[in-house]
Amino acid sequence: MIYIGIDVGGMSIKAGVVDNQGEILFKHSCPTGVERGYGAVIRDIAELGISAVEKSGHTMSEVKAIGIGIPGIMDQRTGIVPFCTNLAWHDVPIIEEMKKYTDVPVYVDNDATVAGLAESVKGVSAGTQSSVFITLGTGVGGGVVINGKVFSGSHGVATEIGHMVTVDGGELCSCGKRGCWERYASATALIREGRKLCAVKPECALMKVAEGDITKITAKHVIDLAREGDADCAEIFDNYVHHLAVGLANLINVYDPEVFVLGGGVSHSGEFLLNAVRAKLPQYVFFKTMPYARVELATLTNDAGIIGAAMLGR
Amino acid sequence: MIYIGIDVGGMSIKAGVVDNQGEILFKHSCPTGVERGYGAVIRDIAELGISAVEKSGHTMSEVKAIGIGIPGIMDQRTGIVPFCTNLAWHDVPIIEEMKKYTDVPVYVDNDATVAGLAESVKGVSAGTQSSVFITLGTGVGGGVVINGKVFSGSHGVATEIGHMVTVDGGELCSCGKRGCWERYASATALIREGRKLCAVKPECALMKVAEGDITKITAKHVIDLAREGDADCAEIFDNYVHHLAVGLANLINVYDPEVFVLGGGVSHSGEFLLNAVRAKLPQYVFFKTMPYARVELATLTNDAGIIGAAMLGR
Repeated sequence: MIYIGIDVGGMSIKAGVVDNQGEILFKHSCPTGVERGYGAVIRDIAELGISAVEKSGHTMSEVKAIGIGIPGIMDQRTGIVPFCTNLAWHDVPIIEEMKKYTDVPVYVDNDATVAGLAESVKGVSAGTQSSVFITLGTGVGGGVVINGKVFSGSHGVATEIGHMVTVDGGELCSCGKRGCWERYASATALIREGRKLCAVKPECALMKVAEGDITKITAKHVIDLAREGDADCAEIFDNYVHHLAVGLANLINVYDPEVFVLGGGVSHSGEFLLNAVRAKLPQYVFFKTMPYARVELATLTNDAGIIGAAMLGR
Repeated sequence: MIYIGIDVGGMSIKAGVVDNQGEILFKHSCPTGVERGYGAVIRDIAELGISAVEKSGHTMSEVKAIGIGIPGIMDQRTGIVPFCTNLAWHDVPIIEEMKKYTDVPVYVDNDATVAGLAESVKGVSAGTQSSVFITLGTGVGGGVVINGKVFSGSHGVATEIGHMVTVDGGELCSCGKRGCWERYASATALIREGRKLCAVKPECALMKVAEGDITKITAKHVIDLAREGDADCAEIFDNYVHHLAVGLANLINVYDPEVFVLGGGVSHSGEFLLNAVRAKLPQYVFFKTMPYARVELATLTNDAGIIGAAMLGR
């Protein structure tokens, strides 16, 4: 049996044919064209998947399932996507729409959830039954696998882990609450703190790297300077790692997974981040003499969306 | 088939014979006698369970499973209880010990987990597949049911939800961290804030109820005065409900259950608490137009431990 995996983003739709071990046999892509509305986008999703099978030398009769990862949430009970901001979707009946083009079973889930599943099948968490994948990007997203299956909760919102409050009364979040974890553990947090630094200390190294323009500061600038030993950026980075570790410890207290997988832009800082998190986390674990989740970096990058989506139907 | 359910506390061991629907057919109890060590306690657990079956008019051949709820954590992979403070147990091989007395399969889990399962079988969350039971007592404990099964994570610590940090840098917790949820959502929090009030305002109504002795302040005193309209205690209570709701919203972002069940001492304040939480929670939910977990009060009280333990093996 083979699977179709489709990764839908605001800019492009990627479709692949994937075997039972999570290996991509063929893949191609097309622009999303969000402005055309969900009907046209979903038609393209179906056609791109079906044509991928043909081009891979297989037939649709061999396809066990089609999986779709979306940058939004999915209500599994109704088959409807309640929200998908990047696609401008609201209450989109994706399962019903897909049935216009194929009889193959269709599975849909959040893109971070799908990426987490991909890592657990073919990536760094392969072989584990429970893992939490965390995207450290503009925001913080989560992909939870429990007993080898993706976990999205009763209404599809179980992995909005970025909006777990860790600093009640703290930084205002776009969601209206104060102190959400993603205000402190995202790339955005590093940029915000970098800008604050430059405002009070315009002669700092970070301001030089940003060529005197605070709007040019990136998370990578802050992390690179911290790695090079710049005291100001090291302080920002240490504080970032503190908040990241506080949230991971919270997730141990609720999910107790075998492994955390760090993905997203901030994770590209690699071993420097990983070693810092591994050093900090033990201080915040409740049962200090017991084993707890190991922390790893994501290994699949661009293909995680296709592989994970395909594996939704395995 | 019938089940043996055993509720082990620091003071007493309660054993019951329970049918497939969670109905108790017979129950009895004996003192725990913690000071005798785990060997003697586990022998009593087994004997009390076996004699309950005889006294109920059934035979051990009808027993499908024995379930045991303990005030600690259980490592399901090893069959060992790593920690159980109230019983002074550390690394106790409970499954191996039980095998000395019976061949019937034995299941062991945390007492809050077990109580949550009981509510989902026979209590207020009956009929749901996913629920989070929360004990609001000296601390805050959790019992999570996912897909109709208890969820305790990979190492048995998944439901230490009381040690989820919600106020980073806040009140010091017994676990060594600052700002754990249970520092703000437990009965202990209400007592602490009541004492603070009396320290700065010794003429307040709470000080009168406590007869001028702040060590006599209880959570019930604070809640009763809030209910009666005392402005000082209403402020403490409102703040308590805020923190409780922040934590519940966090749990929606990770577990997204169908229902929250509030148990433990603070839940005895009943509708007054329930209405306040139900009014506050919507403000903190991420997807404000989507359905989310309803909040209910626990309905099983003393029998929850026996019923839930028995249902571990169902």
